[in-house]
Amino acid sequence: MKTLIVVTHPSLETSAVNKRWVEELRKYPERYTVHELHKAYPDGNLDAQEEQRLIESHGPLVLQFPIYWFNCPPLLKRWLDEVLTYGWAYGSNGGDKLKNRQAALAVSAGIREENYREDGRYRYSLKQILSPFEATFLYCNADYRSFFAFYGMENEPGETFPEKRTSRPPADWRAAPKTICAFLITCNRPTERTIGSSLPNRTSCAAAEEETARVRTRNIRPSEALGGIPRVR
Amino acid sequence: MKTLIVVTHPSLETSAVNKRWVEELRKYPERYTVHELHKAYPDGNLDAQEEQRLIESHGPLVLQFPIYWFNCPPLLKRWLDEVLTYGWAYGSNGGDKLKNRQAALAVSAGIREENYREDGRYRYSLKQILSPFEATFLYCNADYRSFFAFYGMENEPGETFPEKRTSRPPADWRAAPKTICAFLITCNRPTERTIGSSLPNRTSCAAAEEETARVRTRNIRPSEALGGIPRVR
Repeated sequence: MKTLIVVTHPSLETSAVNKRWVEELRKYPERYTVHELHKAYPDGNLDAQEEQRLIESHGPLVLQFPIYWFNCPPLLKRWLDEVLTYGWAYGSNGGDKLKNRQAALAVSAGIREENYREDGRYRYSLKQILSPFEATFLYCNADYRSFFAFYGMENEPGETFPEKRTSRPPADWRAAPKTICAFLITCNRPTERTIGSSLPNRTSCAAAEEETARVRTRNIRPSEALGGIPRVR
Repeated sequence: MKTLIVVTHPSLETSAVNKRWVEELRKYPERYTVHELHKAYPDGNLDAQEEQRLIESHGPLVLQFPIYWFNCPPLLKRWLDEVLTYGWAYGSNGGDKLKNRQAALAVSAGIREENYREDGRYRYSLKQILSPFEATFLYCNADYRSFFAFYGMENEPGETFPEKRTSRPPADWRAAPKTICAFLITCNRPTERTIGSSLPNRTSCAAAEEETARVRTRNIRPSEALGGIPRVR
């Protein structure tokens, strides 16, 4: 069955990584359904039953979003609260619609990877920062396949943005569309059930990186790379 | 200066712990301002400047909310995104309004404490689950004083609710209002700056518990204790 990518970005058109991921995923309609929440529900009022139907008619579920304040956008949190309901996502009365369903996250991570460490600037790894989503999937007995992250699309706190931007985006940011597809291929491969022992994130990302090393775009001009990059916290 | 408690609960009137906390906090208007987001903004459209003004006219900041899907309600995430802006909460152009400001969380935690452990059912401690909020305060150079949690106001997944509820709420749930005040007194005491070495949560909670051991209500009848308890994930 096709993979459902639920994309939640308040301003996808002016985004960098998330927009490119979407553009790439849309090239393979036989594999992926890209569902943009802000486009489907401009007023923020979700149709929970329609969302449930959409999930049921697909196989793997991927939540794609930019990390703002170390968390998902509000509309995705609303989606989780309203769609993953008792009797559908959990509970004894038919609450098994995510059970064994492959699930993953694809996030643009904002700050640099080296700051996402227990001994780093913000004291937590991205795996820990994303633990609410992993725990949610565990709660629903989904087959959580880890996350795919694109780090470093942002300034450090205290820097003036964007006039005096001093840090450059990572050199491989334009390869982001390819890497997400590679990640999805990797994480959709049949493996043993991961509940109770989910795949280490490092493994998935390493595999994705290996597969996509050849597609990385080189020699990005900073001026070009900076065009249209939103402030992604 | 008074402490600002930003309360975000989609249905405070039918809640148990959160409502009691609010009732208790309102007894001390000289110490606490209780600001209910859903009451102030029924349509969800926040006045970010007014929120910023409110924070600036107070001392410590406490975010109080029930944990749904291991995370805050969507309106609080929207509040974080819209209120903690560049040039106010961070950044070089006046982004220092949270700098050194005491900040804490007060949460009703849903599942039982023993499940919130690295070797527990959901594999993460509540400290890790709440890491997005801690990291946000760190980013803004606030003086994060840990969190106060009330565990176990919910069924386990798979149980039918509420008709066949088998688990009882924790015996001390009616003492919750007293304990939050004790926690706030504890966490508002002047201490060394905690950035880089925040107080272990255990310490704050232990101190709060010690101070309030005498106020704990005993012999709660289950029927009474169960009245009006919302489904708190």
